[in-house]
Amino acid sequence: MSKLHVGVIGASGYGGAELVRLLLRHPHVQVTAVSSHQYTGQTLASLYPGFQDVCDLTFVEQDEVIAKSDCVFAALPSGYSEPIAEACVQQGKKFIDLGADFRLKDADVYEQWYDHSFQNEKLHADAVYGLSEIYHDEIEQASVIGNPGCYPTSAALGCYPVLKNHWAKGMPIIIDSKSGVTGSGKKLTEGTHFPRTNEAFAPYKVGCHRHTPEIEQTLSGFAEEPVQVTFVPHLLPINRGIVSTIYLHCTKKVDLEQIHQLYVDTYADAPFVRVLDLGKTADLKFVKYSNYCDISLHMDEHTGMFIVVSCIDNMVKGAAGQAIQNMNIMYHFEEDAGLKGIAPSF
Amino acid sequence: MSKLHVGVIGASGYGGAELVRLLLRHPHVQVTAVSSHQYTGQTLASLYPGFQDVCDLTFVEQDEVIAKSDCVFAALPSGYSEPIAEACVQQGKKFIDLGADFRLKDADVYEQWYDHSFQNEKLHADAVYGLSEIYHDEIEQASVIGNPGCYPTSAALGCYPVLKNHWAKGMPIIIDSKSGVTGSGKKLTEGTHFPRTNEAFAPYKVGCHRHTPEIEQTLSGFAEEPVQVTFVPHLLPINRGIVSTIYLHCTKKVDLEQIHQLYVDTYADAPFVRVLDLGKTADLKFVKYSNYCDISLHMDEHTGMFIVVSCIDNMVKGAAGQAIQNMNIMYHFEEDAGLKGIAPSF
Amino acid sequence: MSKLHVGVIGASGYGGAELVRLLLRHPHVQVTAVSSHQYTGQTLASLYPGFQDVCDLTFVEQDEVIAKSDCVFAALPSGYSEPIAEACVQQGKKFIDLGADFRLKDADVYEQWYDHSFQNEKLHADAVYGLSEIYHDEIEQASVIGNPGCYPTSAALGCYPVLKNHWAKGMPIIIDSKSGVTGSGKKLTEGTHFPRTNEAFAPYKVGCHRHTPEIEQTLSGFAEEPVQVTFVPHLLPINRGIVSTIYLHCTKKVDLEQIHQLYVDTYADAPFVRVLDLGKTADLKFVKYSNYCDISLHMDEHTGMFIVVSCIDNMVKGAAGQAIQNMNIMYHFEEDAGLKGIAPSF
Amino acid sequence: MSKLHVGVIGASGYGGAELVRLLLRHPHVQVTAVSSHQYTGQTLASLYPGFQDVCDLTFVEQDEVIAKSDCVFAALPSGYSEPIAEACVQQGKKFIDLGADFRLKDADVYEQWYDHSFQNEKLHADAVYGLSEIYHDEIEQASVIGNPGCYPTSAALGCYPVLKNHWAKGMPIIIDSKSGVTGSGKKLTEGTHFPRTNEAFAPYKVGCHRHTPEIEQTLSGFAEEPVQVTFVPHLLPINRGIVSTIYLHCTKKVDLEQIHQLYVDTYADAPFVRVLDLGKTADLKFVKYSNYCDISLHMDEHTGMFIVVSCIDNMVKGAAGQAIQNMNIMYHFEEDAGLKGIAPSF
Repeated sequence: MSKLHVGVIGASGYGGAELVRLLLRHPHVQVTAVSSHQYTGQTLASLYPGFQDVCDLTFVEQDEVIAKSDCVFAALPSGYSEPIAEACVQQGKKFIDLGADFRLKDADVYEQWYDHSFQNEKLHADAVYGLSEIYHDEIEQASVIGNPGCYPTSAALGCYPVLKNHWAKGMPIIIDSKSGVTGSGKKLTEGTHFPRTNEAFAPYKVGCHRHTPEIEQTLSGFAEEPVQVTFVPHLLPINRGIVSTIYLHCTKKVDLEQIHQLYVDTYADAPFVRVLDLGKTADLKFVKYSNYCDISLHMDEHTGMFIVVSCIDNMVKGAAGQAIQNMNIMYHFEEDAGLKGIAPSF
Repeated sequence: MSKLHVGVIGASGYGGAELVRLLLRHPHVQVTAVSSHQYTGQTLASLYPGFQDVCDLTFVEQDEVIAKSDCVFAALPSGYSEPIAEACVQQGKKFIDLGADFRLKDADVYEQWYDHSFQNEKLHADAVYGLSEIYHDEIEQASVIGNPGCYPTSAALGCYPVLKNHWAKGMPIIIDSKSGVTGSGKKLTEGTHFPRTNEAFAPYKVGCHRHTPEIEQTLSGFAEEPVQVTFVPHLLPINRGIVSTIYLHCTKKVDLEQIHQLYVDTYADAPFVRVLDLGKTADLKFVKYSNYCDISLHMDEHTGMFIVVSCIDNMVKGAAGQAIQNMNIMYHFEEDAGLKGIAPSF
Repeated sequence: MSKLHVGVIGASGYGGAELVRLLLRHPHVQVTAVSSHQYTGQTLASLYPGFQDVCDLTFVEQDEVIAKSDCVFAALPSGYSEPIAEACVQQGKKFIDLGADFRLKDADVYEQWYDHSFQNEKLHADAVYGLSEIYHDEIEQASVIGNPGCYPTSAALGCYPVLKNHWAKGMPIIIDSKSGVTGSGKKLTEGTHFPRTNEAFAPYKVGCHRHTPEIEQTLSGFAEEPVQVTFVPHLLPINRGIVSTIYLHCTKKVDLEQIHQLYVDTYADAPFVRVLDLGKTADLKFVKYSNYCDISLHMDEHTGMFIVVSCIDNMVKGAAGQAIQNMNIMYHFEEDAGLKGIAPSF
Repeated sequence: MSKLHVGVIGASGYGGAELVRLLLRHPHVQVTAVSSHQYTGQTLASLYPGFQDVCDLTFVEQDEVIAKSDCVFAALPSGYSEPIAEACVQQGKKFIDLGADFRLKDADVYEQWYDHSFQNEKLHADAVYGLSEIYHDEIEQASVIGNPGCYPTSAALGCYPVLKNHWAKGMPIIIDSKSGVTGSGKKLTEGTHFPRTNEAFAPYKVGCHRHTPEIEQTLSGFAEEPVQVTFVPHLLPINRGIVSTIYLHCTKKVDLEQIHQLYVDTYADAPFVRVLDLGKTADLKFVKYSNYCDISLHMDEHTGMFIVVSCIDNMVKGAAGQAIQNMNIMYHFEEDAGLKGIAPSF
């Protein structure tokens, strides 16, 4: 079988570089070109020495990436993906965007949070939100995918079964998330300088993180009613992984065993969602460097609070891995092609 | 001025060793004896080499510690402190317990969570809960202090102003806490083995941690009505520090500026509570190795959720430092004697 | 093609569990059985939750592992592998030992450092030291492989070209190595308790580590004369990786460019040894979780000291990965089958 | 007693900020002014929130610092300290430079490594190298102190006894050092970005670090003959601390016990150098956040190599702490005034 030609625009950043790393192991694709605005002409291996001897790609212009690829990925700051999507659609190529440009459906909400506006509304209307487990059929048909954000992926997979079944109707939801530092990307900042970050811990953008509207859009879609969340992200002094501790109230009279059964049934066919046995607690340790989302369920009996713990690797299931999973769905590859590895336990 | 003679029972554990480290710098005390059940006859410096050349104390029996001290500290597993308290009271000495035995006032609740029962009820009735900022006057008069737990200290200081003033009446409270590994102590466990803990993160004892009843007892006392909390602790892969992210609803119609003013006013005279300016976020980085509790206040405007971030060093303000602060109050030393250091910022 | 049946004895420890993790991705093998003395009857996934849904193996007795496998791996404390090797040889199976029992050729040296003696001398005489790059042909013919230790692998690959070519004849060699904590294994110890290890650093077993005789045996074999080394290992507060900084003097009048060319030529056909360009410095970051050994070469011009920096992942190239590489050689699989992944760069 | 007025020029960097933190606890000094080129007009607490409520100093111009202080400290990049020293000497003030400008005595060597030249040679001739334990008497008389670099401090204290006594005459010395990331300072760099640095380890500037000539100048002074060293620094993924593993050969026929006795005797009166008992190994864990230098001594019996392990906190004994120790000596304070704390052990 001839291999699918894929390219990555914005491959010098963390999301793009991780994508290339994973794509190199994919049995059905060949990475034909990568681009980087800042590093054009340099090799990927010069930036990330782990690629030496394995990948001799040099960063080219993004037009060359599009020209050489059947399926184009982009991992760019917000505002840059629309013209790329347009070019791909015109040339009959598929486009998977790891950035934020195709995640939000409401133009006003997008503009409010990202300071850009939609130029081509139809493109956004046709784009599919790439939460692989939930929108599998739409993804299969899509030309443009807005790959979900890392926090929204962990939150959405954690809440889907109860919201979809209206077991938590009208209830406030609190999402207390903790993410490793790779979530902040490759850019140098005071907040990611080693001596500042190491042995530190704090929340940031309390109640005002850009992923809030994305989470609300997704959960509202599940619940078929407007859902509001209080979302507080925290920066963990580790490289990778997100744990979202989600607090909600079940309105339906069910016990934890029944909720657990609902989750197990809902994700029975999802190759990358593991609902842990009751009594166990999800830990990002066991999803790190893998495409798994581990979910554990808990009930605080004395307050009646239902607590979901949802763990992913922010760079894999929260970015590059899910993008590949979406490509697999779009091209009818096995859903886990190129994504079979499990977390190293130590 | 002759120095106060103090001794530490259980000085081989983390809480006790930290207490000795801090007491050695205290201008008004002399550490006269330390004990350890397991290491009797060995020196403190053999266990913790940092003490070499600075402290030549050898672990003795606990009776010798009591005999040689005016003020006795104990840092023991639950169930061991009652007879020590009894002996101290009989001999006219003061006793500060870093363990859990004198924290809970209700004998049934204590038995339910700690599997021990009160033998001498009067002792417990007379003991004072050593939350220094709130119970200053009672501490001043006390003979026996139950030093608060680490999580309860961060939670209580974070909630006190709004609860005391009935601004959050009848509302559910969620406390999502994250603690460094020293909170688990010196004992070797699978969960604190370096390769297991490092680059990992997860909650534990979700909704069923022993500190829950202590937090509820304290908050109920503030609110003068029964308060229930959903408390979820997490293990941070760092040595020290607790961040509690507290979610509650204000029932009183006040804005964030008014709440902030209330916190500022409430803690105006508290030398170790710093209410950060609005717009700033507390970080355990800036309290580590110090006795400070840093509190920042936030409002999620779109859901109306009021969020408190409360940070302490679990070993200092959450244990040994607060115990010394209580001693300072009991003996009319300056409240910050021996506790003046600030966090190293890096 | 039917898959090779492989089994792992001692799969509950770090070396064995890593081996299973890697073997699960190997295209030509099937893991048929795993054993653990301590956890017989339990699943691998109960011990290491990352295996959930991917591997449903239950620990069985070691005889069952041998019976069900064509190629048997063992990752056991020293002294346990000889009878397993014997059984394998009798039953015409191949055996790869990740422990120390078949590394040392001299019975007296083995007894001196490991407190066990050889029972079956022929077995040891026939066993091949599995340093894949150097002993490729012997490995191809071997029935029993003594897989090299982690430190010796990094040291030997770093020194081989100059010693083999007698460019550093008769010179003292200093090997200052630093290893991540997984090198100490799964066993709980004071020295690997998180709060003790984190933010700490020190050498250990200075000049008296068990890997010293193994290193000297290997380097002496290269040099065809007795080589002595001063070897000092240090414990790095990270999970994985070894950096060996090796100090030696070239006796041959060559400059750094010539030495570099020698290294490049020597390892031209080695798929997992990367000799970095002059001016670059090897970093364990870029070999972590991979089977690569990265080597950089340096000259301190003012003292004439030649310095080699050799980096590996102690659990992969230093243990499980090299064992698989040896299996690949023994069974004429591609040498990198199942080992193609590169280090995540972040 | 009225307090000594001290000021810190360059207090926004790590060295300067650490100096202020320590000086705030010093019983005999008052910090009267701090300066920062970049942050003039802002408060120290705005940069380092740990100072809030404890220190309300605002960064002023450096002339104001000099005017308000009897003793002036500077912690600046190389090349900026000479005019400050000149001003201090003219105004009869003492000056302690934490930078590199007054460390090297040879103008050519300084120019070669630092790209600046001496403007006022007499100033450099009169300046004293502030290695407190060794040059105590000269420091007592000095007006200008060149405070030693962090690596040179650990190396010099580790080698002094054997070199001073000519027990290692003419022998090559290898210094393999490992430093925490604070040694790189506050400036953002690719190499100190958290996801790059965390779980990584590598040497840097192999054989060509600027501290090499400083180490050689100091050791040559001890030995009274030219000493050359091979010095290789490594970056540890932790915040603080340096371990130097020093390899040398004793030319004098002495055993380890005799060498140990020499070290014990040499440092008998040094309050901050602890020579550990034979059999123990120095660990930066037990010097962190303290002014101690812990030294352990080892002999590799089979090669005759003598190995010294020397540990300090790079920011304290390697910078701010030693500067204060020098001030204490200059002003006849107790040598350990303001420096009494020991390392937290966890």
